[in-house]
Amino acid sequence: MMPFEGDRLTRSMRARNVDVVLATSRHNVRYLTGGYYLSFYARASRFGAGQYLSVVGIPAERPASAFYVGRQDAILNEQDYIEAFGPLWITDRHWIQRGPSMSAAAAEAAAQVLRRQGLAGSTVGIESSFLPADAFDALRRALPEASFADATPILADLRAVKRPDELERLRQVHQMTAEAIRAVLAEGRPEETTRQIAARAQRRIEERGASFLYAFTNVGPGFLRAPSSERWGRGRSMHLDVGAELEEYIADVARMGSIGAPPALAADLFTACLDAQKQVRGAIGAGLPCRDLWRIGTEAVTAGRWGPYGRFLAHGLGMVSHEPPEVTRDSGRSLEASMVVSIETEYLHPDAGHVKLEDTVVVTPTGHEGLGDVARE
Amino acid sequence: MMPFEGDRLTRSMRARNVDVVLATSRHNVRYLTGGYYLSFYARASRFGAGQYLSVVGIPAERPASAFYVGRQDAILNEQDYIEAFGPLWITDRHWIQRGPSMSAAAAEAAAQVLRRQGLAGSTVGIESSFLPADAFDALRRALPEASFADATPILADLRAVKRPDELERLRQVHQMTAEAIRAVLAEGRPEETTRQIAARAQRRIEERGASFLYAFTNVGPGFLRAPSSERWGRGRSMHLDVGAELEEYIADVARMGSIGAPPALAADLFTACLDAQKQVRGAIGAGLPCRDLWRIGTEAVTAGRWGPYGRFLAHGLGMVSHEPPEVTRDSGRSLEASMVVSIETEYLHPDAGHVKLEDTVVVTPTGHEGLGDVARE
Repeated sequence: MMPFEGDRLTRSMRARNVDVVLATSRHNVRYLTGGYYLSFYARASRFGAGQYLSVVGIPAERPASAFYVGRQDAILNEQDYIEAFGPLWITDRHWIQRGPSMSAAAAEAAAQVLRRQGLAGSTVGIESSFLPADAFDALRRALPEASFADATPILADLRAVKRPDELERLRQVHQMTAEAIRAVLAEGRPEETTRQIAARAQRRIEERGASFLYAFTNVGPGFLRAPSSERWGRGRSMHLDVGAELEEYIADVARMGSIGAPPALAADLFTACLDAQKQVRGAIGAGLPCRDLWRIGTEAVTAGRWGPYGRFLAHGLGMVSHEPPEVTRDSGRSLEASMVVSIETEYLHPDAGHVKLEDTVVVTPTGHEGLGDVARE
Repeated sequence: MMPFEGDRLTRSMRARNVDVVLATSRHNVRYLTGGYYLSFYARASRFGAGQYLSVVGIPAERPASAFYVGRQDAILNEQDYIEAFGPLWITDRHWIQRGPSMSAAAAEAAAQVLRRQGLAGSTVGIESSFLPADAFDALRRALPEASFADATPILADLRAVKRPDELERLRQVHQMTAEAIRAVLAEGRPEETTRQIAARAQRRIEERGASFLYAFTNVGPGFLRAPSSERWGRGRSMHLDVGAELEEYIADVARMGSIGAPPALAADLFTACLDAQKQVRGAIGAGLPCRDLWRIGTEAVTAGRWGPYGRFLAHGLGMVSHEPPEVTRDSGRSLEASMVVSIETEYLHPDAGHVKLEDTVVVTPTGHEGLGDVARE
């Protein structure tokens, strides 16, 4: 069964004058197939003289005519992987052999399908930041009468409202990440470097079954966020901002910790973070214009004694960080139920360092549900 | 200090008529910088409406005029990351801001440097399978008088002979992987699915400090290698072929196991694998033509009773799997000391399944050194 709303996709394609979408990024291939990506290349696509590329093609009005291009040869039988994965709703499948340019070969195979479907002269939507140059050249050579447009916003908008199973993955990965951060902060020893702390964050994420993405580690005072030979110690607060991934869904969580009692200034700034989060969460619900969310958050953070040091940021989160909904001064859209928003409240004070709280919420018809609301205080 | 031989790179560029190389893949950026890649994006480059792209540019004859393009803004101070990483030999650094198209912006910044260096009309070597389409378009727009050529083979050849620190990384990751496979096979329980076995391989790799890439799991009879709901049981042999990564260096190791005594046929085929490996290893040393290595391996595997089921494959291994040296019937090159070759001997017999042994060796002046030679029997 198609794991997205075909009508919603068609409307978005028509609004941008795109006749057929070719998805080539790992995240959009997974999204459109319903979770499938050839596991051999999922964690490293480089191989031989190029990289693996698979393609999901979906024509407007006829999403059921979608096709898939993958790899098939003596070494790697992708049909077996698809069988092991479970049923794939796309039944029109095409296979390229291993060779010096797998990415160009996949694009050529996709171009042939478009020609057979009568779409050789159409406007083809590509992921322009996720289509390799050799694949794009192969498409242009094979379809000289086609036009090309960037389909990135079409696919990002399609993903903005999450399905229940997507929300469940996001719940899981945020819970794992918040618990991993709690464990890392609780284990903190004086004189440990922030590089060692980041390495522990990776282990604590991985042992919970998620993939580690990154860690920002700021020990105040000063704003250095890169894991380094800087040492955490008594009377210094630390922010640990960690990214993790579970089956393509991203968690983005920041927490504060200190060894012994936190410095008074850091404690004050953290209280301001919590207060601002509370105000923002109180306003969230389906129908709230995103520009109002931006205004409420910005006012909450910049009001009061520490305002001049404050910063507010909110962004959509799912398979991609900073995906729709966009939350800026000028956003035209409103929140919808089952959108997911990460809320960052932070103060950068030269004496205390970078004090930050970041959490993610699901928009509900009447309010919000917090994801991974563990150890916020 | 430059972590590669500038003269070797220049010769290779001149042989292919390339005036300047622009590296954009994570592995080649790491190779040319000496190990650096912005850690925030190293495990997931997707962000917002595009993906992160950094560029290392190196002109022929003047490798010391190399430049770096990275990202810099209020959220992410890449200069801090480079400081935390240690000294970076490339001092000509350029920064792009976060924006809707980070990859195109990085390419535009690189084009400006090329113009200032007098290379606007030159032949620019790109990684055509690792340069995003929007970045390539930005380069072509900014440098209409330039020509473009694929620099993938130039960079792959540069990496073929490994430095001592690279060999040490490859030793470590092969040892970790071989030990992880041994642990997974030793823990094998009847009725476990190959999907569960692959998940255990991931945990055993990660707890040793490497990154898991993939697992092939074949339980004979039959040739299915995808992790699935197939179950391993008494009297059935299994091959476990695992990929792992440590600081960009890849291990590729396959071992056989069985619960209880292996089936007699599988044991026979495995003895044939071992014998063929022994013959191939006995021939390896600096100066051996790669085509001779291919012939010796192919003859060793296809001779004898099980020959019709045999298959031989050897390939270079380092930051990329199946990198130079190329080992085929027609290879023109010879092995050099400090090249690294992965040797695969396997038999696909319908009654026994896919029986395989894969190991990696470093070529030495007089022979070879095995990497991760653990639990081969």
